[in-house]
Amino acid sequence: MTTTTFSEACANLRPVDNAGAGTDAAELSDGLTKPRGSLGRLETLGAQLSAIARRCPPPVPEPVTVCVFAGDHGVVAEEVTPWPQEVTAQMVANFCAGGAAINVLARHAGVEVLVVDVGVATSIPADSPNLLRRNIRPGTANLAAGPAMTTDEAAAAVEVGFDVATSAVANGARMLVTGDMGIGNTTPSAVVIAAMTGHDAAAVTGRGTGIDDSMLMAKTGVVAVAAGRLRTGAPPLEVLTQVGGLEIAALAGFMVGGAAAEVPVVIDGVIAGAAALLAAAFAPDAVGYLIAGHRSSEPGATLALDHLDLEPVIDLRLRLGEGTGAVLAVPTVQAAAKILGEMATFDSAGVTDKDAPGG
Amino acid sequence: MTTTTFSEACANLRPVDNAGAGTDAAELSDGLTKPRGSLGRLETLGAQLSAIARRCPPPVPEPVTVCVFAGDHGVVAEEVTPWPQEVTAQMVANFCAGGAAINVLARHAGVEVLVVDVGVATSIPADSPNLLRRNIRPGTANLAAGPAMTTDEAAAAVEVGFDVATSAVANGARMLVTGDMGIGNTTPSAVVIAAMTGHDAAAVTGRGTGIDDSMLMAKTGVVAVAAGRLRTGAPPLEVLTQVGGLEIAALAGFMVGGAAAEVPVVIDGVIAGAAALLAAAFAPDAVGYLIAGHRSSEPGATLALDHLDLEPVIDLRLRLGEGTGAVLAVPTVQAAAKILGEMATFDSAGVTDKDAPGG
Repeated sequence: MTTTTFSEACANLRPVDNAGAGTDAAELSDGLTKPRGSLGRLETLGAQLSAIARRCPPPVPEPVTVCVFAGDHGVVAEEVTPWPQEVTAQMVANFCAGGAAINVLARHAGVEVLVVDVGVATSIPADSPNLLRRNIRPGTANLAAGPAMTTDEAAAAVEVGFDVATSAVANGARMLVTGDMGIGNTTPSAVVIAAMTGHDAAAVTGRGTGIDDSMLMAKTGVVAVAAGRLRTGAPPLEVLTQVGGLEIAALAGFMVGGAAAEVPVVIDGVIAGAAALLAAAFAPDAVGYLIAGHRSSEPGATLALDHLDLEPVIDLRLRLGEGTGAVLAVPTVQAAAKILGEMATFDSAGVTDKDAPGG
Repeated sequence: MTTTTFSEACANLRPVDNAGAGTDAAELSDGLTKPRGSLGRLETLGAQLSAIARRCPPPVPEPVTVCVFAGDHGVVAEEVTPWPQEVTAQMVANFCAGGAAINVLARHAGVEVLVVDVGVATSIPADSPNLLRRNIRPGTANLAAGPAMTTDEAAAAVEVGFDVATSAVANGARMLVTGDMGIGNTTPSAVVIAAMTGHDAAAVTGRGTGIDDSMLMAKTGVVAVAAGRLRTGAPPLEVLTQVGGLEIAALAGFMVGGAAAEVPVVIDGVIAGAAALLAAAFAPDAVGYLIAGHRSSEPGATLALDHLDLEPVIDLRLRLGEGTGAVLAVPTVQAAAKILGEMATFDSAGVTDKDAPGG
């Protein structure tokens, strides 16, 4: 395998093959033993998987790895969340022990879990072969008071994510899934979404893991101030430097890494949505490799997906993060590939096709 | 196992245990390492599975069997569908050969497929150990012209479904899934939904597998005439006698059979929605055992689910039938049980709980 840097990957990213394999998939789908279009979103997923793999039917995307990027956020000083910062490290330990929601759902779907400490602020009370220690700095600075980190730190966090994706595919993964953990991280995500889409603070700010009205008002104010520091169309590295977080930067690099390796990347909720906007700014053609796993109940998530023209696979009112919504979507994504690969055609099954030419 | 008749089952059905195990599940869920309520629909599914199993955490509902009931419809004489009637038998053969969408999706989810001929009109050009031949009559009479069948035939079709469910559970299934196949069967489904919910023909009638405007107008007219023959609140056996179909009757019996055996029954789209309204009329407490697998794009499906206060698990714009949407939901339903059974608590994982009493 040739070693590629993040900037080389951005420059050389190959668009998915919509005109070739994507179109082949739509044609194949029309000949399968079902009314045309009747498998709805499964058919568009199948076409996307074909376009990504550049062949139809596409391979079933497995094995699958979910990478949970963890980082802390100085903005917790503004009381935007009721959870203490130590919970980030405690939850990383929980991921290592296999007791978190993401572990349960990943085991259920046959998905490997990797945890990446890219910026946890406190000591992680556990270890595991699945924990990658790539800490850039112990949490960001408070984005309400100034830049969240240096530009070099933001670039380094992006590289971590890119490397993790590249290595996961080199180790055999054929589909990647994004996960995240970071107390307070819906706040920088909201700022990123505001900066990248132009929506105002009130539209992009939500209740995260569950905050009351007064905390929501404070959080919205913080988002408005920070978004006001960023001109619309600011380059992604400047946005990351100003706002963070380290895991959001890593997720953006991870998405570009998956796209550069030409595998589908299933993205989770609002944190991933913010990172996807940045990935799209780094490398517009990366978006063709992204599959929105679910619709988070956080309002900014839907605005980010709409901006990228991504349609979520599931909608179960999840607002947990960790990659839970994206991992729940994995069986459906794999099913879309199997539909194209395993279903009989009208001809092969001897079923009358009302839409056959001359039929 | 004691042999129970359908009418005994209706009389003796035990309501799910919402107050006991269902409440225990909600309490357990609040102590797991995640913000309260953050797993959205997975948490309500977990509570329902607990209430059905009468214990918390609930067993993971597996193995799973999908039963695809097939029947034909005399109303095809009214040109409510562009598909020839022989396609019902051809698709049953396709199910036997393993080439249909339901076969692909069931294999993917580890679900067994049984096919039940309860009223196919033409010869089925195949056989399989998974095909149960329980044909009551070769298709219904044209519901636009008069009763679809006799009351005895309707009752017999209900008994077939009840027996199939009872046998499947006796053979080891711990969750049942509904499937259906029958050219023209969205028309009787629409009439059943109109009759049972009071909505008018235009609201309940959709494009089924894909019909044009003039065919939709004819279909809506047929639905209006047939619904007009039924007074609101007509007993379910009278509705089935007037309208059919044989597979809708069997599905209603199947749902009551699953509920009587106290296993979850995941229901598919609009045909199942019509059958669920009838099952609820036969035995109101059966509804507690039903899980709406998906939101079909057929408008009557949503009206039926709303009437029963059932919330679909997935929404992928499917309109195929066969049980495809319900089978796609199976991994998510099973995941909900695993969340309750496998996740760590704040106490066991040493994670700080912002909502702990005194915390």
